[in-house]
Amino acid sequence: MNEIDSLLKKRNKFLGPNLPTFYNSPVHLVKGKDVWVWDKDGKKYLDCYNNVPHVGHCHPKVVEAITKQASTLNTHTRYIHEGILNYIDQLTQTFDHKLTTAIMTCTGSEANDIALRIVQNVTKCKGIISTNHTYHGNTALVSQLSDTNPSSNYLSDFFKRVSAPDSYRMNGSKSIDEYSQNFAKEIEEKIIEFKEEGIGFAGIIICPYFANEGFPDLPNGWLKPAERIIKKYDGMIIADEVQPGFGRLGSNMWSHQTIGLKPDIVTIGKPMANGHPVGAVITNYDIMSEFRNNYRYFNTFGGNPVSCAASLSVLEILKEENLLENAHSIGNYAKNGLKELSKKYELIGDVRGSGLFFGIELVTNKDLKTPASEITSNIVNDMKDEGILLSKLGINYNTLKIRPPMTFSKQNTDFLLEKLDKVLKKNML
Amino acid sequence: MNEIDSLLKKRNKFLGPNLPTFYNSPVHLVKGKDVWVWDKDGKKYLDCYNNVPHVGHCHPKVVEAITKQASTLNTHTRYIHEGILNYIDQLTQTFDHKLTTAIMTCTGSEANDIALRIVQNVTKCKGIISTNHTYHGNTALVSQLSDTNPSSNYLSDFFKRVSAPDSYRMNGSKSIDEYSQNFAKEIEEKIIEFKEEGIGFAGIIICPYFANEGFPDLPNGWLKPAERIIKKYDGMIIADEVQPGFGRLGSNMWSHQTIGLKPDIVTIGKPMANGHPVGAVITNYDIMSEFRNNYRYFNTFGGNPVSCAASLSVLEILKEENLLENAHSIGNYAKNGLKELSKKYELIGDVRGSGLFFGIELVTNKDLKTPASEITSNIVNDMKDEGILLSKLGINYNTLKIRPPMTFSKQNTDFLLEKLDKVLKKNML
Repeated sequence: MNEIDSLLKKRNKFLGPNLPTFYNSPVHLVKGKDVWVWDKDGKKYLDCYNNVPHVGHCHPKVVEAITKQASTLNTHTRYIHEGILNYIDQLTQTFDHKLTTAIMTCTGSEANDIALRIVQNVTKCKGIISTNHTYHGNTALVSQLSDTNPSSNYLSDFFKRVSAPDSYRMNGSKSIDEYSQNFAKEIEEKIIEFKEEGIGFAGIIICPYFANEGFPDLPNGWLKPAERIIKKYDGMIIADEVQPGFGRLGSNMWSHQTIGLKPDIVTIGKPMANGHPVGAVITNYDIMSEFRNNYRYFNTFGGNPVSCAASLSVLEILKEENLLENAHSIGNYAKNGLKELSKKYELIGDVRGSGLFFGIELVTNKDLKTPASEITSNIVNDMKDEGILLSKLGINYNTLKIRPPMTFSKQNTDFLLEKLDKVLKKNML
Repeated sequence: MNEIDSLLKKRNKFLGPNLPTFYNSPVHLVKGKDVWVWDKDGKKYLDCYNNVPHVGHCHPKVVEAITKQASTLNTHTRYIHEGILNYIDQLTQTFDHKLTTAIMTCTGSEANDIALRIVQNVTKCKGIISTNHTYHGNTALVSQLSDTNPSSNYLSDFFKRVSAPDSYRMNGSKSIDEYSQNFAKEIEEKIIEFKEEGIGFAGIIICPYFANEGFPDLPNGWLKPAERIIKKYDGMIIADEVQPGFGRLGSNMWSHQTIGLKPDIVTIGKPMANGHPVGAVITNYDIMSEFRNNYRYFNTFGGNPVSCAASLSVLEILKEENLLENAHSIGNYAKNGLKELSKKYELIGDVRGSGLFFGIELVTNKDLKTPASEITSNIVNDMKDEGILLSKLGINYNTLKIRPPMTFSKQNTDFLLEKLDKVLKKNML
C-alpha cells in the first residue's frame, strides 16, 4: 500500500466514510507560503483555489499577531477586552454607516445560523428564500438552505428556493434587464406562497456574487428589482459575504457594494483571519438590539482576543499591501488572458469574474451551451498534475473556480495561463 | 467617565445591548499566565473560574504548537494532512474502544448541533430530552435545549425536559437509589409523551457531571436506571463533556467514565485546545457512517492543522504534567478545606465536587435548605474584589462554581480558602 492509500485508510478509520478529498488522486499537503503549497514529496503547487489564506499562506504578520496575543491573554467576552472593540470598529468602517454592530462567531455557519434567527425574530415570520444552487453552511438550520446538502427535513417547510442566476444562459430572458425582473418575479411568487401557507416571509439570504452558482456576470443594479420586491413584503436581506468579501472582487471591500445591494445583515467568515476560525454577523444597532434583547446569545470562543488580533492583522495587511488594488489589476490581467485563450479553444463558452475570483465556463457546443462537466473535471485534475490547484463550480459544475490568495501576482497569472493553455490543448474537443 | 464606563459604552455601540459581563463592576483583563490574570491597572487575580485555558493561561507549549503550525500550513480537510489523523488517534484512545471516529468542529455548539442530527438520523425520530437547567450551546437547534436561552419556538415540539438532579434536596426521594429510579421514571414519561405525539424518541443529551445543574453528588451507577430506560425505547445517549471532560474531575479523562455511563456519542469543546476554537463529536464507526452517508457535512475550519496541533499539545501537556493526578489530589485537598470552612459557617449547606470542579451550596436555613442566592452573588463579587475570580451556578444560582485551570496548586488552594474564609465572614448570616 502506498502512503496516500494508507492515509486514506486512516481517514476512513478516524473520520468515517464519505468525506471526499479534492482530486482523483488526493494531495497530501505539508507546507504553505504565500501563493504556494508543497506536498509530502516536495512537489510545489500554485494555489489558485484557496481563499481562506486570504493574504497568503502563513502570512508572517498574521502568525505574529496570533503568537503575540496567544502568549498574552486568550479569554471570552464576559470580561472587557479592547481587542474585540477595536476590531469591530475597524471592520464596520468598511460598511455602510448603518451596519455598525457585530456578533463574532467562530465560523460562517454560526454567523448564518444567527442571521436566519435575526430575520425570523425581527419579522415574526419564518419563511426564508435562497437560490437552488447555493451553500451557506453546515448547522442544522443553515444546511436547510442547500439542495446539495441533504438533511433532516422537518425544517424544510420554512425554506424555499429560487432559480440560481445564470448570466450565460439567462434562462430564457431576452436581456439582462428582463432577467433581473424575472428573478424578482420568482422571488415574489415564493413570498406569496409563504404567505398563503401561513408561514410568512422573513427574508432572503444570498451571496451577492452568487459564488456557488457560478459567479454570473451581473451588472451593478441587477438585484434592484428583487430588492424592491423583498422590501415591498417587509422582508430582510442577508448578504453572505463569506466567499466574495474582504476585497476579493477588487472593486469594493464587499460584493454587495459592487452590485449595489443594501443588506440588512452581512455575514462573513472564511478569509476573515486567514485561516484562524472566525466569523461574524454585522447589522445595524436597532436590529442587533432586538436580537440581543430577545435571545441570550453567547459564544465562548467568539470574539476572543486571539481571534480579534488575527482578524485585525488581515484588515491591516489588506491596506498595507494594497491587496484590493492588486485583486483588481491582476484580476483584469487574468481575465484578459483567459479571453485570449478563449479565441483558441471552442471549449471555452464564457469568461467571467471580478478581481481574484474568476474562471471559464466550458461547453461542448457553443451554440447549445452544453455544459462540458466531465471535461471540466478532467481539466481540474490535469491542472493539479501540472502543479496548479483550482476547482470547479456552478449549476452544472462546468466552470473553473479560480480564487487564489489576494497576493497573486502577474507572474503567477502567467504561470496559470501557460498551464491552462497546455491542459486545454490536451482536453480540446 | 472612567475607563470602564467608556469601554462599556463602546461594547454597547459595537456589540449591541444585553451582552452581560461578569461581576457588578466588570473586569478589564489584559494578561494571563498559568492560573493568574491581570487587569488593566495591574491588579492580579487568581483564576478559579476558567476551564477554557485548561492547562493554564497562555501555556508556552500550546502557543508554540500554534505558532509552529500556523507558520507551516493551515488548510482544510479536502487535502490529506496527518495532523487530524494523529490527533483523533490520540484522542479516541482515551475513550471506550468503540468510540473511535470523530468529526472536528470549531465549537462545542457545532458539535452538539451535529450530535442532535445524528441521533435523529439514526433513530428516524425527532424527540430529544435534556434537563430543565442545562446549557448545550448556541445554534438555532441546540439553543432549544435550554430553558435559560429563549429562542424561536418553532422547533420546541421536538424538545422535552426532565428535572435537573439535585443531590442536596433529592426532590422528595428518600434515598439516592430511589432518586435514581425516579429520574429514570421521569425520562420514561417524556419518552411516552413523545411517542403518543407521533414525534418519537431520538435520545437524550446530558452533561454526565450535570455541571450547569450544580454538579450534584451522584455515585457511579446513578444513571444506570435512566440508561436502561433510554435503551429500552431504542434511544441514544449524547454525553456533553464540554465542561467536565479532559480529566477535570481528576478520576477519569471523561465524566461519563466516572459515573459509569456508556454514551453513543460524546461531544467536546471549550478546554480542548486551551482557548483555540475547537470542538468535536466522537462516536462509533457505524453511527458515524450512517451520518456521513446521509449528510454531506463539511466544516471549512474544522480539523485544520493548527487546531489539531493546538489540541494535540493539550493532550500531551495533561500527561507530561500529570494534570489528572493534580486535579484529583488538589481537588480533594480543596474539598477538605471547604468542609473545614463549613463547620464555621451556617451559610454552607453542602460541599460538593470532583477534581478541579467543586464548590459550596449556600443556604440561609440549613433545615429548610433555603437557597442563599443573593448572598452567593455578593460573595462572588466580594471574592473578585479580593483578587479571586469565581462564579455561581445551579438551579437556584446559590452554588459557588470553582473550576480553575488544571495546574491549580496547593498554594493556590490555600489562597482561595483564606480569601473565601474572609468573604464568608463578611457575608455571614
